[in-house]
Amino acid sequence: MERLRLACTEKGPLCVGLDTDPSYLPPEVLRLYPSEQDAVLDYNRRLIEAVKDNAACCKVQIAYYEAMGLRGLRVYAETLRLVREAGMPVIADVKRGDIADTAKAYARAHFSGELEADIITVNPYMGFDTIEPFLEYTASQGKGFFVLLRTSNPGMKDIEWKELKEGGRVLDRVAAAVNSIALRFPERGGCSPIGAVVGCTDEEEARRLRDECPEIFFLIPGYGAQGGQARIAAALLDRAGGTVNSSRGILTAWKKEPSLEHKKNAGELTINDIAEAAGHAAFTARADLAGAVKSLSSGAMG
Amino acid sequence: MERLRLACTEKGPLCVGLDTDPSYLPPEVLRLYPSEQDAVLDYNRRLIEAVKDNAACCKVQIAYYEAMGLRGLRVYAETLRLVREAGMPVIADVKRGDIADTAKAYARAHFSGELEADIITVNPYMGFDTIEPFLEYTASQGKGFFVLLRTSNPGMKDIEWKELKEGGRVLDRVAAAVNSIALRFPERGGCSPIGAVVGCTDEEEARRLRDECPEIFFLIPGYGAQGGQARIAAALLDRAGGTVNSSRGILTAWKKEPSLEHKKNAGELTINDIAEAAGHAAFTARADLAGAVKSLSSGAMG
Repeated sequence: MERLRLACTEKGPLCVGLDTDPSYLPPEVLRLYPSEQDAVLDYNRRLIEAVKDNAACCKVQIAYYEAMGLRGLRVYAETLRLVREAGMPVIADVKRGDIADTAKAYARAHFSGELEADIITVNPYMGFDTIEPFLEYTASQGKGFFVLLRTSNPGMKDIEWKELKEGGRVLDRVAAAVNSIALRFPERGGCSPIGAVVGCTDEEEARRLRDECPEIFFLIPGYGAQGGQARIAAALLDRAGGTVNSSRGILTAWKKEPSLEHKKNAGELTINDIAEAAGHAAFTARADLAGAVKSLSSGAMG
Repeated sequence: MERLRLACTEKGPLCVGLDTDPSYLPPEVLRLYPSEQDAVLDYNRRLIEAVKDNAACCKVQIAYYEAMGLRGLRVYAETLRLVREAGMPVIADVKRGDIADTAKAYARAHFSGELEADIITVNPYMGFDTIEPFLEYTASQGKGFFVLLRTSNPGMKDIEWKELKEGGRVLDRVAAAVNSIALRFPERGGCSPIGAVVGCTDEEEARRLRDECPEIFFLIPGYGAQGGQARIAAALLDRAGGTVNSSRGILTAWKKEPSLEHKKNAGELTINDIAEAAGHAAFTARADLAGAVKSLSSGAMG
C-alpha cells in the first residue's frame, strides 16, 4: 500500500481499471484474434504500456475475466503479471469476503501463486473477522487491501447508508473498524496496509468521510465513465490520499477520440489506435485530477 | 431452486459441501497423484458418487479452488460438471456482489459457460440493485441464488446484527428485500428462485427468521464440523424448507471412522476408504436431520 502511495505521489493518483470486456473493442480489431480472450490480453498488454507513465497503478476487475471462462481466468492471471512487470502495483478487484478457513483460502489465492496481486478489495458484510486472514499477508509480504466502505451505486442506500440505533450509519461502523485495524500498523510510517473503497457522488459527504478516516488511503471509483467528478475525487484525495479509478473512460477512449473519427467510420481502427487513445485519455485524466487537487488546495488556502 | 426443493423432499435436506482442501486428504493418498489438483478432482468424483443417494445437492466453495491457481479453477469447473452429471443441482458458493455491468459479468460467468452452476450465493452489502442482474437468469434459464442473510461466524454482529434506527436489524432489511423480490415470482407455484443463507447458532432466532421469511428456501450452513445442531437446522427447515450444508463433516469423515483406525495408523488409507467414509457420513447426516425434523414436528403437534 505504501508502494502505491509513493507511486501516486510520483505519477498522480490515476488508477486504470482493466475491466476489459471484449465488447469494448471495435469489431474490426476483435476479429483479428483467434479468440476474444486473446484480443483482451493483447489489448491489456498494449494499454498497460500506453498508460504506465501517467497511471500509478492498474485495477483488474475479475468479473469480466470469469465471464470468459477458464481461458478468461488465464488472461486475468497474465494481466496481473503484466501490470507488475510494468512496475505498477496491481489491485485485484475481487471483493471477496468469507469466514475462517474460506477467507484464508481467498487470501492464499489472491496474495500468492498464479493469481497473485499486490492489493485486493474485500467485502465486510459478514463481519470484521472475515478481514483478519488478509492481514497476515500485509506484514509478511507487503500486501494490502481495500475494504468496501461507501460505493457509488444507488443501492448503497439499502445497507451501507442505513442509520444505526447506536448512532452513525453502517458505513461509519466499517470506517471505525478500518481505522482501528490501521492503528495496529503505526511502525510503517507511511500509510497502513488497509485502505477503503470510497465512491462518492457528493462533495460534502466526501469531505466528511475524509475527516472520518484521515489516515486511510482510499480507492476511489466512479471517476470518468461512471459520472464522478474530479472535484469530489480531490476532496477524497486530501490527507492520507488515494488512487482514483477510471475504467471505461480509458478503455473506450477511442470512441470519443476526434482524430479517429474517420477510421472509426471506415471500420479501419487498429489495436494501436485504440491503445494510443487510451494513453491520451490517461494523460488527460492525470492532468484533470492534478488540476482539481490544485484548485482544491488553493481554494483551501484562499 | 424448485428442482432443489424437490430433491430435498425426495432425498432429505443434506447439501454436501465440496470445500475440498488438499490437506483434507491423508498424505498416503495425496502422494499417489501427479498434483494436488488431480487428487482433489478424483476425490470429488468419488465423493459425489458416494453421497449422491443421500444428498439433495452439492455446494462447491470456489475459494479452495482459487487457492490452487488456474489448474484449481479447472478442477472447480470440472467438479460443477460432475455434480450436475450425477443428477444433483450444484450450488456455487461464490458470494459475489458488485454493481451494474460488473454484476452482469458475474451472472454471465456463473450462470453460463464453463463455470455454469445451477444456483449461486450472493453478497448484498452494496445494495439490492446488485442482485437484479442475477434475476434475469432465473426466469429464462431456471437459475437461482441465495442471498447472504445471517451467517454463523462471530463477526456477524458487526454489520448483519446491528439494530437500525428505523427498527429491526440490518439482516431484517435483507430479509424484507428477499421477501419482496420473491413476491415477483408467484406463478412458479413452488418456491421462488431467490433464497437466503441462514446460519444460526440459536434455536429461538432460527424460529424468528423462519417466521420472518415463511416462503423463502434457506441454505443452512454450520451443520456438523462448524458446530451447528440438527435441532436448529430443523427449525429453519420448517415452512418453505431448505438445504443443510455439511462440508468437513463429510469430507474428513475418514478421520473419525472407527473401522479405518488401523489403516489410518498404518498409513494405508486408500481413496476408496475415504470416499466410503464420506458416503457413510452422508447417510448418517441424512438420518440425523430426518430425526430432528420428525422430533420437531411431533413436538409441535404434541
